[in-house]
Amino acid sequence: MTSTEITPEEKEQLEELYAGFAAAHMTPLWTQIGDLMPSSPRPAAVPALWRWSTLLPLAERAGELVPVGRGGERRAIALANPGLPGTPYATPTLWAAIQYLGPREEAPAHRHTQTAFRFVVDGEGVWTNVEGDPVAMRRGDLLLTPGMHFHEHHNTTDHPMAWLDGLDIPLVRQLDGGFFEFGPDELGTRETPVTSRNERLWGHPGLTPVGAPATPASPLKAYRWEHTDAALRAQLELEQEGQPGVVEPGHAVVRFTNPATAGDCLATIRCEMHRLRPGAHTATTRTAGSSVWQVFEGTGSVSVGDETYDVADGDVFAVPSWAPLTIRTDAGLDAFRFSDEPVFEALGLTRTSLEDASREDAQA
Amino acid sequence: MTSTEITPEEKEQLEELYAGFAAAHMTPLWTQIGDLMPSSPRPAAVPALWRWSTLLPLAERAGELVPVGRGGERRAIALANPGLPGTPYATPTLWAAIQYLGPREEAPAHRHTQTAFRFVVDGEGVWTNVEGDPVAMRRGDLLLTPGMHFHEHHNTTDHPMAWLDGLDIPLVRQLDGGFFEFGPDELGTRETPVTSRNERLWGHPGLTPVGAPATPASPLKAYRWEHTDAALRAQLELEQEGQPGVVEPGHAVVRFTNPATAGDCLATIRCEMHRLRPGAHTATTRTAGSSVWQVFEGTGSVSVGDETYDVADGDVFAVPSWAPLTIRTDAGLDAFRFSDEPVFEALGLTRTSLEDASREDAQA
Amino acid sequence: MTSTEITPEEKEQLEELYAGFAAAHMTPLWTQIGDLMPSSPRPAAVPALWRWSTLLPLAERAGELVPVGRGGERRAIALANPGLPGTPYATPTLWAAIQYLGPREEAPAHRHTQTAFRFVVDGEGVWTNVEGDPVAMRRGDLLLTPGMHFHEHHNTTDHPMAWLDGLDIPLVRQLDGGFFEFGPDELGTRETPVTSRNERLWGHPGLTPVGAPATPASPLKAYRWEHTDAALRAQLELEQEGQPGVVEPGHAVVRFTNPATAGDCLATIRCEMHRLRPGAHTATTRTAGSSVWQVFEGTGSVSVGDETYDVADGDVFAVPSWAPLTIRTDAGLDAFRFSDEPVFEALGLTRTSLEDASREDAQA
Amino acid sequence: MTSTEITPEEKEQLEELYAGFAAAHMTPLWTQIGDLMPSSPRPAAVPALWRWSTLLPLAERAGELVPVGRGGERRAIALANPGLPGTPYATPTLWAAIQYLGPREEAPAHRHTQTAFRFVVDGEGVWTNVEGDPVAMRRGDLLLTPGMHFHEHHNTTDHPMAWLDGLDIPLVRQLDGGFFEFGPDELGTRETPVTSRNERLWGHPGLTPVGAPATPASPLKAYRWEHTDAALRAQLELEQEGQPGVVEPGHAVVRFTNPATAGDCLATIRCEMHRLRPGAHTATTRTAGSSVWQVFEGTGSVSVGDETYDVADGDVFAVPSWAPLTIRTDAGLDAFRFSDEPVFEALGLTRTSLEDASREDAQA
Repeated sequence: MTSTEITPEEKEQLEELYAGFAAAHMTPLWTQIGDLMPSSPRPAAVPALWRWSTLLPLAERAGELVPVGRGGERRAIALANPGLPGTPYATPTLWAAIQYLGPREEAPAHRHTQTAFRFVVDGEGVWTNVEGDPVAMRRGDLLLTPGMHFHEHHNTTDHPMAWLDGLDIPLVRQLDGGFFEFGPDELGTRETPVTSRNERLWGHPGLTPVGAPATPASPLKAYRWEHTDAALRAQLELEQEGQPGVVEPGHAVVRFTNPATAGDCLATIRCEMHRLRPGAHTATTRTAGSSVWQVFEGTGSVSVGDETYDVADGDVFAVPSWAPLTIRTDAGLDAFRFSDEPVFEALGLTRTSLEDASREDAQA
Repeated sequence: MTSTEITPEEKEQLEELYAGFAAAHMTPLWTQIGDLMPSSPRPAAVPALWRWSTLLPLAERAGELVPVGRGGERRAIALANPGLPGTPYATPTLWAAIQYLGPREEAPAHRHTQTAFRFVVDGEGVWTNVEGDPVAMRRGDLLLTPGMHFHEHHNTTDHPMAWLDGLDIPLVRQLDGGFFEFGPDELGTRETPVTSRNERLWGHPGLTPVGAPATPASPLKAYRWEHTDAALRAQLELEQEGQPGVVEPGHAVVRFTNPATAGDCLATIRCEMHRLRPGAHTATTRTAGSSVWQVFEGTGSVSVGDETYDVADGDVFAVPSWAPLTIRTDAGLDAFRFSDEPVFEALGLTRTSLEDASREDAQA
Repeated sequence: MTSTEITPEEKEQLEELYAGFAAAHMTPLWTQIGDLMPSSPRPAAVPALWRWSTLLPLAERAGELVPVGRGGERRAIALANPGLPGTPYATPTLWAAIQYLGPREEAPAHRHTQTAFRFVVDGEGVWTNVEGDPVAMRRGDLLLTPGMHFHEHHNTTDHPMAWLDGLDIPLVRQLDGGFFEFGPDELGTRETPVTSRNERLWGHPGLTPVGAPATPASPLKAYRWEHTDAALRAQLELEQEGQPGVVEPGHAVVRFTNPATAGDCLATIRCEMHRLRPGAHTATTRTAGSSVWQVFEGTGSVSVGDETYDVADGDVFAVPSWAPLTIRTDAGLDAFRFSDEPVFEALGLTRTSLEDASREDAQA
Repeated sequence: MTSTEITPEEKEQLEELYAGFAAAHMTPLWTQIGDLMPSSPRPAAVPALWRWSTLLPLAERAGELVPVGRGGERRAIALANPGLPGTPYATPTLWAAIQYLGPREEAPAHRHTQTAFRFVVDGEGVWTNVEGDPVAMRRGDLLLTPGMHFHEHHNTTDHPMAWLDGLDIPLVRQLDGGFFEFGPDELGTRETPVTSRNERLWGHPGLTPVGAPATPASPLKAYRWEHTDAALRAQLELEQEGQPGVVEPGHAVVRFTNPATAGDCLATIRCEMHRLRPGAHTATTRTAGSSVWQVFEGTGSVSVGDETYDVADGDVFAVPSWAPLTIRTDAGLDAFRFSDEPVFEALGLTRTSLEDASREDAQA
């Protein structure tokens, strides 16, 4: 296929051949293989940062100007990766948005095959009713809305509330796998219990409620900051005591899991909370697949590919596939991370490297 | 094979044949099939009750007369099913014993393929060190010692402590699958932390510590009464609110599970805590496989096969395979149950019936 | 968000807000939700047909004009869905190509995370060496090249050979999960055994070779027409005898599976052979996810969405997600099908409907 | 518990304590631990050999004297391990019997939770109808009767036939897990097809019949000698070619597996065929769990524990748990093996050692 020297006649024959391909809706591999099958991922998505100090005022302004209700469904504004122009996607598989609900506002019920979570970087006062079970949303909490679960939101207070939405919209869109249904226009319940029913059944460590209905998705829909914080603190304390628990020096991680299967809390999205001790830094890691992080508390410096960002509470950044990532902190840092790793694991595509590509290690 | 009328000659020929079988170490099926393959289980084990008011004084007396230490290993006295004479087995698969540790006493380290748990019906002050991790034992707690985990016990107080030991000794003995090793004679640690390291890593609902070492057995070794009690209370409260959660009216059940797999907490033994609301009763249930129960708190009436027992705190009873079981209570009852159901499930032998044999239902 | 009547001032404020969004790389959900989350899949891919009588001459002409070798790697010409302009994809997840190897030609070794198979609609004489194991390619055979297996092809005859290549290139590209490596330029082996080593170990029904090396991918790399044909014939004969076996009247299906796991033969692609008895037709089916079919032998009429095609040996057609599909035949029809269903199953997105959308049935 | 020197008074007190234990149905661990929990298995079962030249004539004589029919059910004579007196068990978990069916005889239908197989060391002419599907029994074949499958046998010829029956009767008896039901007294079918329906659907390598009914047990019920022989021959030929495949030099093994799960063909019994090349010998192996072997063809010398047997066609020998096993052959040897390893694997009790105990290696 190396056509170093071709005659005019050959050129004409080739052009005719390629025109024949085009007419027949055919495309030769040999002209495209470098782009289609690069030696390592060349994502169109780029490292990107969205500052909370930018996101929140724009969401507030949208709260003043744009009503929430049936049709538009949610006052959610997506973080659009500059490398994926024309799409509202944070990465090729992950959607990240800031959602904003004004005082006493309500968002009506719907359900869809796309899987969703909410992570609350600040505030409280909203309940999300998941299949009729009212779930309080409070600072530091992770709340799940697995695929095809009806959900609606209502703000019970006189102040607004904003949070991070994460979904697999880009993945499901690419797969042409999405189904969507409206629920009733009226809210199913306006109860505001401190603890949701799913937590009362499933929120006890190592204890399975034998009489609870079986469900393919996680029966636990709320992971409270109180527990997440305690788990991270324990890992760092154990490290101080010389015991195992952290993933690397000064770096604690908990993964949010489905207590009925011990697998990821969502079928297509991995959710984790990371804590770096003051003065700690992570190894430089590459991972096949993309992720989005939101700083929960603290400050630090994040290097993604060739970019380096100083980050603080609420800042969101996207990490494209195989981009080297390093996080450093002087004062300590808590950060929420979500990624498409469950997809890579299910399809046998998992691969990570530490420090540098020479130590790259394929994992089955 | 129905030999209604046989001649003397035939009788002699048959006797010769059977003598030939015996000489060749052969046994015909047709003379034994009724015993070997009955239409439903005919266990040799019988319904049996051991009262705590009997068990505890005998254990205390053993504490005065019998030292604990290397060789005998543990001051544990097994509950021997009267239908299995000559064995120290509660059922054909399950071992149940009262173990007693005097003030300041220590039991040295060993490990074995047999799987063990401790359930504490009363008292506190003993720590069991599981693979070097000191685990406090307190009223209502379930503590695990999976197979091949080194373990040792030490009483740090001036009062004795007794508890229930459960193991799969009969099963492993029948399978000829047991291996046993002594550990050091000296205690590995005399620390007495309120919370063990395994709980600090794994005792948070739905949260997996990403950096924790992987292990085939449950990484969580302690299930605290505080959580068990809260989970049972929530199920009964949900029932009052008209929500699902209980297994039948007035009957709450939690199963102790391995948070790394969501399966049973032990490979061969299922552990559950049951709570009956005052005035409640269970359906009459038959289960293929045997179980042992210990009343934790409250009073009730238990029917096992043709036996009926009035039971109270600490009483232990054995339920043979397929024996109908009914529990009734006026004042309310909490009871711990362990069974060989994981074995039956793994081997495709699970079967239960509710109310009566006519509604018997084989389950895959 | 329904802005039925807005004042010029409001319009200006909204424009300012949207400009703010754009500057901050943000996109509101409410303007896009209908496209992002439709009530059912609205694939950009369209029903498409490529006739073998078009494909083969163009491939032959490419054989005359374009050499095969390092760089371009393979003389494969992709079937490009007209609904996905600018891409060489048959569907959003699946790549289908005709590959052509001239007399005595060789294609050098490489490997990649993308998973591949070859299906031979006609001809023979090429061996594909998969990890050094030479696998004959003959009419009706399915040959696997799972991810990261080195593979090379060589034509040992004086006649050319063409076949269908299927890969998950679009999926892996979208996920940014692809890695690619060149192997040696020289062929590893030119042996031409009738039966490959993997078949000699794994090609015996229900028999696992205990000493064979374990591998995450299917250890069996070749599925021979002789077996496929016999299995389909048996299903239709059993139907004639009144016995179960066919999926619907006159419609036999075998799925190619990994004998070490019993799951799909490839992690991301399902492969099946379908046989319709003369006069038979399928139900009209919709499936979430896309597929590509190649007629192996026979003739029929295929309806995909609003299109209807008369098809014959070698013709290839693409079925977009959720497009209704019906196949009818007078003379009988054998057709090979591959799809992205393993992806949908792994991610909990499986959904099918029979006959019409009113009987649509979500499957967990 | 080390009672080096005790006073008469102490002795009396201890005797009183032990009497109290006995009266309360309690047994102290410390007097029994050595037997209950030995450092490695001490099976009561012993190495044992049953010669085909003894088994067959006794079975033939039984055929003359004892009718087959409802009640006795089967003319099967069990091989009773001399170490397990009073039981008809080959090992603590496995039943092995020679079954004999005279010319034109029939054995009526029944089903039971116990799992069964037949292995045919010689002869043919009997069909076993498994859930109404007539399965021919021929030399070298393995035929399955999973739990709760109705089955009946009929000899269609004028000559008798004998074969080996294997079941998990001892295991299920110990677990009290057995259920048994009679079927109709009259044979369901007297058809004698060469190939059973289950083979026509499932007997094609790597091909799953999509329309076949799902079943928890293996859908394939017959493994034919033709395939087993070819698979073993291929392994030894690959060894000659320097390719992997054998488990050790000169030793080929195939495991009979469920094609719908790729797991063992039976839930509680592993079945394998072993072939030793002339002049070969196995390593000395210990396995936790017991097995029974039947020589299919050839001669050899078998060492089990302290016993050594010269064996030939049809000879059966039992290998107790953890007994060292070595097989040697001058002329070559084919042997069928069945074991309780699926039980050990399911319960986490698997352990093997090679050559000698010092190289013992616990396996998870």
